[in-house]
Amino acid sequence: MACGLSWAQAADDSKPAASNVPGSQYPRIHPDLRVTFRVNAPAAQKVQLKPGGDGLGKAPYDMVRDGQGVWTVTTPPAVPGFHYYFLLVDGFQCNDPGSQTYFGWNMETSGVEVPGKVDFYEPKPVPHGEVRARWYLSHTTGLWRLAHVYTPPDYDNSGSKRYPVLYLQHGSGENESSWVKQGRVSFILDNLIAAKSATPMIIVMENGMVATKPGAAPPQPAATAGRGGARGNAAFEEVVINDLIPMVDATYRTMANPEQRAIAGLSMGAGQAMQIGLGHLDKFAYIGSFSGGVRVTDLKTAYNGVFADPAAFRKKVKLLWIGAGIAEAASHQANQAAHETLETAGIPNVFFECPFAHEWQTWRYDLQDFAPRLFR
Amino acid sequence: MACGLSWAQAADDSKPAASNVPGSQYPRIHPDLRVTFRVNAPAAQKVQLKPGGDGLGKAPYDMVRDGQGVWTVTTPPAVPGFHYYFLLVDGFQCNDPGSQTYFGWNMETSGVEVPGKVDFYEPKPVPHGEVRARWYLSHTTGLWRLAHVYTPPDYDNSGSKRYPVLYLQHGSGENESSWVKQGRVSFILDNLIAAKSATPMIIVMENGMVATKPGAAPPQPAATAGRGGARGNAAFEEVVINDLIPMVDATYRTMANPEQRAIAGLSMGAGQAMQIGLGHLDKFAYIGSFSGGVRVTDLKTAYNGVFADPAAFRKKVKLLWIGAGIAEAASHQANQAAHETLETAGIPNVFFECPFAHEWQTWRYDLQDFAPRLFR
Repeated sequence: MACGLSWAQAADDSKPAASNVPGSQYPRIHPDLRVTFRVNAPAAQKVQLKPGGDGLGKAPYDMVRDGQGVWTVTTPPAVPGFHYYFLLVDGFQCNDPGSQTYFGWNMETSGVEVPGKVDFYEPKPVPHGEVRARWYLSHTTGLWRLAHVYTPPDYDNSGSKRYPVLYLQHGSGENESSWVKQGRVSFILDNLIAAKSATPMIIVMENGMVATKPGAAPPQPAATAGRGGARGNAAFEEVVINDLIPMVDATYRTMANPEQRAIAGLSMGAGQAMQIGLGHLDKFAYIGSFSGGVRVTDLKTAYNGVFADPAAFRKKVKLLWIGAGIAEAASHQANQAAHETLETAGIPNVFFECPFAHEWQTWRYDLQDFAPRLFR
Repeated sequence: MACGLSWAQAADDSKPAASNVPGSQYPRIHPDLRVTFRVNAPAAQKVQLKPGGDGLGKAPYDMVRDGQGVWTVTTPPAVPGFHYYFLLVDGFQCNDPGSQTYFGWNMETSGVEVPGKVDFYEPKPVPHGEVRARWYLSHTTGLWRLAHVYTPPDYDNSGSKRYPVLYLQHGSGENESSWVKQGRVSFILDNLIAAKSATPMIIVMENGMVATKPGAAPPQPAATAGRGGARGNAAFEEVVINDLIPMVDATYRTMANPEQRAIAGLSMGAGQAMQIGLGHLDKFAYIGSFSGGVRVTDLKTAYNGVFADPAAFRKKVKLLWIGAGIAEAASHQANQAAHETLETAGIPNVFFECPFAHEWQTWRYDLQDFAPRLFR
């Protein structure tokens, strides 16, 4: 068959990854977390596996062809968590047909979920919330936009009860689905809420990549602009403030005041959360930066001078939260330095670190620490 | 760059397809509905475009390489609607990185949306419902399952009002997301409800491909079993009757009686709707078969004899609806014959035809005709 799926079962104790399409036997995870990838490409001259993050390694792996044209490679033990990856088939970067797709790198990529020893992001027999796809017309862009909205388990049965709201953003090249699929936001919150570790809240996820005003040039895709491309265009701030928050407050049973509204994001989204949150302290009292580039070289001028008067800042901001993975060393160091500078200056803030890299496992841990601190 | 996206703008009046990832300039639709596909694969020896349905043609198109290794092909004018497609890169079947992915053919495929002269499935400035991702634990399978649930625009603001429910199934190789992404179910219903052409209803979409009982062999993927593979395994009927309906009636404000419950599906899902609906007339009074294989060779024995007593059938069933596309000629002929046989035998049923093939455009038209006939 010409298609790229291999359905033959491996004769060992490896198991298909949970991120595979149903029925696909590869990729497979071994007990020691090595991962075997396999595709069927008889006419190809060269097939490689290209990691799209740090947890599978950096360089492309050459896959090895057998007599039937099935190509296989087994990686060294992988880091637990979710890792993007691609195939390079005669140099052409494409998906593994055996994997579900996950929006990252400005395209639908393959991904592999490597199990960890923790289960805080797995579905459990607890009450489950929903993730709702909500279309709305943005006046800023003139276009229909899609938000994903997590509502907590009791939302439909709590009468007129109102809820606080967390606005939660993805990274560069991702979209409104990324916190749901890669981040497991609903399972993390369901589990925290069931354990009474987090206040039931609404979580709103939007697309921080494609906010363009009518007539303006479209955002540069990261394939051209690099991983950091297209970040933080000003139109997204206008979408959030002028379109998204009013829509959410009109559509859901929210508590529409800054003490009941948070904003956070990861990587590019961390920058957006800092920009939008610190720029609108009349709207947000909780701000989270997950693996972002918090920079406070000059306390008087950073973020438009919001730290210049620590007493005024402390009065308005209930939580400033800065997280980084230890394995993303430069980011970790910079964020820790920013944390200390702020603390010394009388700007209280939480610094959180976990062992992982610039990947979703870090951001799942971040959310697990951040969410319980909100709306208390 | 080694990645497969081509961002250069075409110098004509073609436009990027609405099904592209944001920022991707290809595929592009020309005013006469020709479609130009383009990918960057300098090291490939041969690149082809392989349609995954009828609307783009049948056979793979050879793409033509330019001096820089960019491969291009323009198809003849395409049929309006949504069409699956693949790339064959040196024979390896994979996605076009410029396209969003759509679950079909048991994998994440590329797709191209070719605009028609109708807009009943486009978002309009009317009140919008939501599609909710609802996880639940299936006792039949012992696994967590994901249903997508459309709730109508007024659902959150109508107090204790209760709603009828349509269970709506995809085709072979697709999943619970297919009616949402390929079928545009939410926009079709939003528009019908706004025009007062359809009763506000809840629509539940589940995965008819992956219902396996503990210990049973996993369903055969269609890549092995052919397009019709894996259809209608018995466990899915048990999931619907014993797990899904009770969960939906316990979770949403439904009217939990057969006069307020419908089941329909397309292709493989049409067979499931007929099997489950006709097999449980204590649960469903409305049944729809979209491009299915309705067979009534022997009226006494077909579908376990449910047509043997027309008077009893008429008393229970408020609507039996059979649809087929004219361009899927054999299916159209067989379904029309079944319609006539049933009508002659005193089993009233609606036969609906639209000009298209065994593709999503037919099923969008089907839903537009079927939904207004429900719960009246």
